[in-house]
Amino acid sequence: MAVYTDISEVDLEAFLAGYDLGKLLSYKGIAEGTENSNFLLHTSAASYILTLYEKRVESADLPFFLGLMQHLARKGVSCPLPVSRRDGALIGRLAGRPAAIITFLEGVWVRRPSVAHCREVGRALAELHLAGQDFALARPNALSVAGWHRLWDASRARADEVEPGLAAEVDADFAIFDRDWPTGLPAGVIHADLFPDNVFFLGEQLSGLIDFYFACNDIYAYDLATCINAWCFEKDHSFNLTKGTALLAAYQAVRPLSAAEGDALPLLARGSALRFMLTRLYDWLTVEDSPLVSKRDPVEYIRKLRFHRAVRSARDYGLVR
Amino acid sequence: MAVYTDISEVDLEAFLAGYDLGKLLSYKGIAEGTENSNFLLHTSAASYILTLYEKRVESADLPFFLGLMQHLARKGVSCPLPVSRRDGALIGRLAGRPAAIITFLEGVWVRRPSVAHCREVGRALAELHLAGQDFALARPNALSVAGWHRLWDASRARADEVEPGLAAEVDADFAIFDRDWPTGLPAGVIHADLFPDNVFFLGEQLSGLIDFYFACNDIYAYDLATCINAWCFEKDHSFNLTKGTALLAAYQAVRPLSAAEGDALPLLARGSALRFMLTRLYDWLTVEDSPLVSKRDPVEYIRKLRFHRAVRSARDYGLVR
Repeated sequence: MAVYTDISEVDLEAFLAGYDLGKLLSYKGIAEGTENSNFLLHTSAASYILTLYEKRVESADLPFFLGLMQHLARKGVSCPLPVSRRDGALIGRLAGRPAAIITFLEGVWVRRPSVAHCREVGRALAELHLAGQDFALARPNALSVAGWHRLWDASRARADEVEPGLAAEVDADFAIFDRDWPTGLPAGVIHADLFPDNVFFLGEQLSGLIDFYFACNDIYAYDLATCINAWCFEKDHSFNLTKGTALLAAYQAVRPLSAAEGDALPLLARGSALRFMLTRLYDWLTVEDSPLVSKRDPVEYIRKLRFHRAVRSARDYGLVR
Repeated sequence: MAVYTDISEVDLEAFLAGYDLGKLLSYKGIAEGTENSNFLLHTSAASYILTLYEKRVESADLPFFLGLMQHLARKGVSCPLPVSRRDGALIGRLAGRPAAIITFLEGVWVRRPSVAHCREVGRALAELHLAGQDFALARPNALSVAGWHRLWDASRARADEVEPGLAAEVDADFAIFDRDWPTGLPAGVIHADLFPDNVFFLGEQLSGLIDFYFACNDIYAYDLATCINAWCFEKDHSFNLTKGTALLAAYQAVRPLSAAEGDALPLLARGSALRFMLTRLYDWLTVEDSPLVSKRDPVEYIRKLRFHRAVRSARDYGLVR
């Protein structure tokens, strides 16, 4: 978590001259997000987030991400609205990097989500899926089964350092995913990273969704499975069935799941747990230890993976059909 | 530069219940300042800075720092105003640390100060010195000659790694400081760290002074000498006489220097350069390299130290008497 790139006030004022945002009052680097450099701007008009896109984000993907936010915001989803430059573009350059300004959303992310928070997230995710249906651009999910294989190839040899037996466990998972990963389920634009730090609340009311930089086209129920992983487990790795039931019911109140989606949920949840375990494992083994990047422990997701392996049906998550 | 301590929204809301600041809308860790953890809060009332004081700040000094800001703000100095809790206190506890809330000052710090900026700083420093005269508390300067000796004792053996010959150079300086460091000059509350990142501007207008966590009682002209070091040298280490002249004239327009202060200025500037060289050298040699703490190169201040050794009179800085 940190600012990678500092910007001078001279460069920033030149950049802001391309926008119609009033006078710059202040800007502060925000110690959140590991992928990009983010600044909170105050101008005489309002508050904004300025993002400099660092190496891990592909420039070619920016029109998808920013166009999606614009599309969703116009459809009534509470998410940041990219601000257009005077020349109409959403993306400029600052300090040698692609840069964009988005509106600032008030709200705090909840470190300890309640059942009510899970309900809000379920509803918001379904609304997001519906609102994205007529978005014109598409982006394949770089972190689906083929992408997991690449991460695993790079990590497998040292996996047992993190947890004895992990290499064999995950090899067995891959045999199943390679054979059984579902095709033909309803798919479209998904957020793909809707963790608590990407959802803002004012009290128990959801005030906004942020960070669309993993958004892509994939199975809707896979996005839902990721939310189950991210929101419905307690700190001790136990699954909270009340939260799962609330999240799934709220999702279905807006977008009911088909029988096939319900049937696939355990495998999708297991795949989602593997995906986050693999990126954490890869970072754990390859990224140098530093306070700049707060590496997340892969063990949390090894535990979730094991939980999902034992699940018999989506009813175990609280799905009512 | 970074947030050392994260805070949960639950803990923050409990903390804020002790204040009369309206409803919490958002809080973001700020990637600035190396000593403490700072958050920018938006509440329904206004914007604020929340600071958690980390180990390097002595709790016993907090009443001095916060009381000083309150005193100065009431005297019309543009600096953050500490917000009183409902119980009247300025300091509470959050995440196991002393914590305080201060008002948010709009403005940006200038990476490349102009002559006009230097003029503003000279005036503001003199106003600060006058406004602090009737402040009731006092705090000795832990980083005056005796403190320099402690830093030097801890760094001397490895000093030549940074710059060959440095140990002998600085030993010779100490012989002079131990003999000639001035006594009896006008003294009172000084900021002691008025570098560009602690001064906010809106355009060329100074909008505020921040970060009083090195403030202490010491020689006024020593504070002025620190500003000469911090504001009047170019990136190539050359001294900009136009900036020095502007800064000194603006200071004197508010608080004229006595003959003795003018005479002492070269030695004070040399001492101030040594002080910042020593803290940088110490950090350079002892703090582990990490993006969290952006270590500053001591060489910049070795160059300034050499410049001041060659100065014959304060006229070389632009002092007109």
